[in-house]
Amino acid sequence: MGLVVIGGVAAGLSAATRARRLDPRLEILVLEKGPVVSYGACGLPYLVEGRVRQPEQLIVYTPEYFRKERNIEVRTGARVVSMAHARRELVLESGARVRYDRLVLATGARCDTCGMAGAGQPHVFTLHTLEDAGRMRRFLAEKRPRRAVVIGAGYIGVEAADALRRNGLRVTVLERSANALLRDDPQITLAVRRVLEEHGVELRCGIPVESIEADRAAGVECDMVVLAAGFKPNIELAVEAGVEIGRTGAIRTSERMETNLAGVYAAGDCAEVTHRVSNAPAYIPLGTTANKTGRVAGANAAGGRERFAGVVGTTIVGIFGVGFATTGFSSEQARAQGFSPVSARVEGLSRPGYFQGVKTTVELVADRASGRLVGGSVIGEEGAAGRINVIATALGARLTVDEFEQLDLAYSPPFATVWDPLLIAAQQLRNAW
Amino acid sequence: MGLVVIGGVAAGLSAATRARRLDPRLEILVLEKGPVVSYGACGLPYLVEGRVRQPEQLIVYTPEYFRKERNIEVRTGARVVSMAHARRELVLESGARVRYDRLVLATGARCDTCGMAGAGQPHVFTLHTLEDAGRMRRFLAEKRPRRAVVIGAGYIGVEAADALRRNGLRVTVLERSANALLRDDPQITLAVRRVLEEHGVELRCGIPVESIEADRAAGVECDMVVLAAGFKPNIELAVEAGVEIGRTGAIRTSERMETNLAGVYAAGDCAEVTHRVSNAPAYIPLGTTANKTGRVAGANAAGGRERFAGVVGTTIVGIFGVGFATTGFSSEQARAQGFSPVSARVEGLSRPGYFQGVKTTVELVADRASGRLVGGSVIGEEGAAGRINVIATALGARLTVDEFEQLDLAYSPPFATVWDPLLIAAQQLRNAW
Repeated sequence: MGLVVIGGVAAGLSAATRARRLDPRLEILVLEKGPVVSYGACGLPYLVEGRVRQPEQLIVYTPEYFRKERNIEVRTGARVVSMAHARRELVLESGARVRYDRLVLATGARCDTCGMAGAGQPHVFTLHTLEDAGRMRRFLAEKRPRRAVVIGAGYIGVEAADALRRNGLRVTVLERSANALLRDDPQITLAVRRVLEEHGVELRCGIPVESIEADRAAGVECDMVVLAAGFKPNIELAVEAGVEIGRTGAIRTSERMETNLAGVYAAGDCAEVTHRVSNAPAYIPLGTTANKTGRVAGANAAGGRERFAGVVGTTIVGIFGVGFATTGFSSEQARAQGFSPVSARVEGLSRPGYFQGVKTTVELVADRASGRLVGGSVIGEEGAAGRINVIATALGARLTVDEFEQLDLAYSPPFATVWDPLLIAAQQLRNAW
Repeated sequence: MGLVVIGGVAAGLSAATRARRLDPRLEILVLEKGPVVSYGACGLPYLVEGRVRQPEQLIVYTPEYFRKERNIEVRTGARVVSMAHARRELVLESGARVRYDRLVLATGARCDTCGMAGAGQPHVFTLHTLEDAGRMRRFLAEKRPRRAVVIGAGYIGVEAADALRRNGLRVTVLERSANALLRDDPQITLAVRRVLEEHGVELRCGIPVESIEADRAAGVECDMVVLAAGFKPNIELAVEAGVEIGRTGAIRTSERMETNLAGVYAAGDCAEVTHRVSNAPAYIPLGTTANKTGRVAGANAAGGRERFAGVVGTTIVGIFGVGFATTGFSSEQARAQGFSPVSARVEGLSRPGYFQGVKTTVELVADRASGRLVGGSVIGEEGAAGRINVIATALGARLTVDEFEQLDLAYSPPFATVWDPLLIAAQQLRNAW
């Protein structure tokens, strides 16, 4: 077999598709351990919520589609249990052996707390696969739970809390660290807490959960628990085969998404990437990065020469209609990365008052030594994605605050204010220097 | 008098305010020829529409406010008729003389077709000042016109057409050039035409209007005409005083917004700026640029050292709820500027279908020789501002297409698709090379 891809969701199928595009004759096989491939995992909370009515709505393509339209063989229920790179051979759970010339590891990640005492109970869920969401949906319909605990206030945790609350449950979110959204930023946490509380969801930070009982977790009564903490890359197969693991704990890759083993690539939630602001390795598993790194891995596995420049860590999550968007580093994170952060936070309007503009909070973080922007956040009911993307673009281009202040952003009353909050934040940041 | 500012709208008051901030003791006088100052001129079409109910809603500050809160003297009804720089002296229409040490020219622009035969009739309007909008509003209420002709399909023209149509009029827009929105781009014109026609507004391009009759213009029957073509900078005063005019016909300025006369600055709609993509002088009068250049002129007039880096020509206009956003150059414009353009246009979704994503058209234009992006456009009912701002940021940072393709943009189903149309356009553009 020419190219074998382990994993049939975002990274794996991006790799297979891109490889096919570059080499129409290459043999390509995708091995997926689950029953379906090619689904939008980021849509799972909306399946739980009920906004997405059928799991099928999240499935982009079927194995048949790949076979017929792209000449890519896709096997579901095909879990790889062993990898021997010297022989270029994989062993499946079924005992079948598969040989490869080139290999893309897109083995994904899993919830690290799944081994927690009590995690195996029927009222405990993760939200990682289509089956997870389906199981949760059925539980909601059949058992009609009234009180849920969500463990972890990362993206999936707050999205799950939002979805369950909209299903009428009382929800408490327990977060081990001091802050929400995986960001060391007390102001963001405060804003998240405020929105959650306005909608009747409680957020408790600094609460480690060691075990889950039948009717409570960390002392909070509940009849349902969602585990959404401790995302951990699936690297066991790679480790066994001698693939090098980076200091983040994920698979180390070059900018071509190649591992230390020639012809073996890694992409998606199992792979480490470079953070473009710090130039340090980073593990920030996200759907966008999975698609992009998969594409690059697939291209290079098919003989192309593409590169992945890295990430700046841009994220956005909607909590009860409010967008929380972050990119680069918070002040605290920047300091931990060796920068000398200076920051400014402003509250502006998304557009003029006579166009029903809403409050928009922008923070910019810069490095005092170089003058460069190193991070930012945007919170608001509208325009948060567009505005964080401007900051993300500035980070990608390594702009200084002075350069950022000179950006020529669009203005017209239905869309923005004449001084966008982004530019006001830049002015304030210069004043704060 | 330390600093005199001619013009009391966006540029002039930005200049005065910034000067005050830098020098608390400077004497500052603002001379405004009209009866009010500090109004949001970009909101005028929405006053005509009726969305903005009272002219006062568009007035940000009063002369009293400037006097009391900022120690800035503001005189309305103070038209400057003559300027003698050797004596550092201005003469007002009233005959009064005003001396200055430093001067900021923020004299604005006017509609160049106002001298057209028949332009003085009571059913003919411009939409440039608060009084213009008030007069049009009264005419709509009292005369109940049924058919309007708008001359000019630039921003103000299409906004006026939208506003009048929403007031129940039949509207025809006549544009002298081949294209709408001041952009040499047949695809944009096609899209504008489609949206206008869907809402019952006719757009005719290539129609010069030489005169306006009592009941028709260019053969189109109407009982109301809006002149929204041929924006021209007010430079007469400057010319008289020996201020140099640039090749765009507006006042030539340095990056400090200083004219050729020491201590005389120009800002806003009367001033020329640098286009950052072509590095050539440009005349693109917009509210954002007026505020920014005013701020820089005021700072430097008060002894500061600030610079205006120039524009990339970012604009957005809403037509019946659809955002039309452009930045940099279209292919045709790029070619005229000496670039060898290559472009790609894609249609994507603003967010996933299950989140009611809407059609979003993105075009990127690059220069084949350098690989650099030189322009782009975004058309859509949502997210157009955010997406054009990403392109504008890329132009400001002089990114290549390869660099643009590597941007780490935000994704989450309520906000975007995993492959944003911006990134798909970049991929297509590389394929089109």
